[in-house]
Amino acid sequence: MREVAVLGIGQTKVDEHWDRSLRELAGDAVLAAMYDAGITVAEGLFVGNMMSGSANHQQHLGAYIADWVGLRYAEALHVEAACSSGSAAFRAALMAVASGALDVAIAVGVEKMTDSPGAEITAELATAADYDWEASQGLSFVALNALIMRRYMHEYGWERDHFAPFSINAHANGAHNPYARFQAPISEAAYRNAPMVAEPINLMDASAIGDGAAAVVLVPAEKIRSGGGKKIIRVAGSAAATDSIAIHHRRDALWLSAAERSAKQAYAQAGIGPEDVDLFEAHDAFTIMAALSLEACGFAERGQGPRLALEGQIRPDGRIPIATRGGLKARGHPVGATGVYQIVEVVQQLRGEAAGTQVDGARIGMAQNIGGSGSNIITHILRAD
Amino acid sequence: MREVAVLGIGQTKVDEHWDRSLRELAGDAVLAAMYDAGITVAEGLFVGNMMSGSANHQQHLGAYIADWVGLRYAEALHVEAACSSGSAAFRAALMAVASGALDVAIAVGVEKMTDSPGAEITAELATAADYDWEASQGLSFVALNALIMRRYMHEYGWERDHFAPFSINAHANGAHNPYARFQAPISEAAYRNAPMVAEPINLMDASAIGDGAAAVVLVPAEKIRSGGGKKIIRVAGSAAATDSIAIHHRRDALWLSAAERSAKQAYAQAGIGPEDVDLFEAHDAFTIMAALSLEACGFAERGQGPRLALEGQIRPDGRIPIATRGGLKARGHPVGATGVYQIVEVVQQLRGEAAGTQVDGARIGMAQNIGGSGSNIITHILRAD
Repeated sequence: MREVAVLGIGQTKVDEHWDRSLRELAGDAVLAAMYDAGITVAEGLFVGNMMSGSANHQQHLGAYIADWVGLRYAEALHVEAACSSGSAAFRAALMAVASGALDVAIAVGVEKMTDSPGAEITAELATAADYDWEASQGLSFVALNALIMRRYMHEYGWERDHFAPFSINAHANGAHNPYARFQAPISEAAYRNAPMVAEPINLMDASAIGDGAAAVVLVPAEKIRSGGGKKIIRVAGSAAATDSIAIHHRRDALWLSAAERSAKQAYAQAGIGPEDVDLFEAHDAFTIMAALSLEACGFAERGQGPRLALEGQIRPDGRIPIATRGGLKARGHPVGATGVYQIVEVVQQLRGEAAGTQVDGARIGMAQNIGGSGSNIITHILRAD
Repeated sequence: MREVAVLGIGQTKVDEHWDRSLRELAGDAVLAAMYDAGITVAEGLFVGNMMSGSANHQQHLGAYIADWVGLRYAEALHVEAACSSGSAAFRAALMAVASGALDVAIAVGVEKMTDSPGAEITAELATAADYDWEASQGLSFVALNALIMRRYMHEYGWERDHFAPFSINAHANGAHNPYARFQAPISEAAYRNAPMVAEPINLMDASAIGDGAAAVVLVPAEKIRSGGGKKIIRVAGSAAATDSIAIHHRRDALWLSAAERSAKQAYAQAGIGPEDVDLFEAHDAFTIMAALSLEACGFAERGQGPRLALEGQIRPDGRIPIATRGGLKARGHPVGATGVYQIVEVVQQLRGEAAGTQVDGARIGMAQNIGGSGSNIITHILRAD
């Protein structure tokens, strides 16, 4: 397998983009990444998206976006894995370059959710769960995560307020990211007084959906000229794993098996352990998911994710910084785009371009994207030379 | 890049499967392919599907189907490229094995369309076209192809009846395929008297949608034990290309540039030319598409696709047999599954298992899957040792 590097990154602000269409958002990110990489053509475009077929009446996003950005005739396809669609597209692009089939591939994640009414979006998000056994019973995605969080609090004795540091850290970091949907810090009181969404998940435990697109350019590492100024960012580890799609089929609803499995594979590929990771873009769609991810990836003991947060270890100057550019909570969670945003943000950190929330001396970054309630988890490890 | 071989194939009959769910259909095909391959585990599952998010209220088909077939913890994702979703999933699985990332990957194409009312299906199919500039103007997929066919007849002087042999050949071949939706031959009179769908496309020019699933198991060719009885079927060529998603943006609406490009790349990879191809599973969603494919891939002169059919050269004993197991027309066109059905049928031919329509001495087979009105075209060439 050829070693692959990220040559360019691009992103749009996550927002309610009422004046931009899906193809315009995707195009903005792709062209920014191509400009950053210093390229004008590419052989392949891999689009991560979850719900354009229903929310935008548009499938076939490969050809649709390739056409729009002037990559006509390139290979192009759409990859979907619910909320992990972005990293699934990144991994598909990686495979195409690693195999030798393509020399320049672009992965773009895009989601345009404000075209669809709120009630429909809730139903569309629930298509990531098991329709027969979860969604059709009325279980929304927040409700599924609420079941997990309540059980977790019961098992390990945590209270609601113990989850506040996840949200506070994310918003504090997002305040330094011009692409974040929310760019203001929040207080403990704001967390405590936030309206309840699905008990015990309140508005500050839950990430915000939104419109956005992020893109990266992938090339064989051997083809990058050294000495060009920018650091070479290599993909040192890439692995994907699944678990049951329905929570009730899972052996242990409080353990992200697919996170553990994909992280272990990625660590092995990179020849490192969790102690070597300088920052971790975790999938904090809900605070409970941030806690479970830290545990499954070996950063915290089982049931002790919140302790890491309470000790301040997840902040940019802590032992394992997470949500360094705001995470899903503050940067926002444009579903199928999120996985690519995470990669873009890790690259920013490894290049030393994360102004305001730069992790000192960051050399190894990890990104982990979760689809469904832990049913599809993809882990990537990037390393700067 | 490692050489990859198809170790197993499986399929369900294309039909209105009112009593089978999407996951059951997909599972039937996957388990049949695993049984055929003699394996009980796989590392990756790549699902081709176009419209489950709207038609079945279910996205996240990777985890959904992996869970169902007992491949829990495997990597799994969903690939979409409109009507070429099946071959896009096949190609993604191919890249994963070719790169060395996986040793056993399964590609499954599945579509369950009868869950969705007819009017909605027409709208869902139109999401493969450009929503802003085609679908929202009321152009259905049949209408788009009707525009192309009418212009083609005008340019090259063909009449409607000249397209009859495509349909007659497909139905004659489908009569020998127990998995085909239609298993009875049709007459010239039946073609001539078929009701009009969108002038000049009549019911016998158009393929039937339906429910179905097909699957293949991919492994590194070097890992197959020789002497096991079955022929080793290698993937000798694989290429994908796009063109504008909207017809009016295309330089030439009567030339499938993406078919020409992907076929040329696949020929070059396989070290062959069109004269070496023993059979060609073309994407005959409409008779006009069969004609245009034959031309773009070098089997017929420009504007002369119908002549090849009129001369009988597309029949199993002709120069370039197409739709040898019924094609989209008679086997049926369960949209996101079709590309995998084509691969399964080429494998049947190369193994010598295409009873009734076996192409004598078939050693090299080609499958070509078209997404949209020619906007995404993926070509595969398979070779038997």
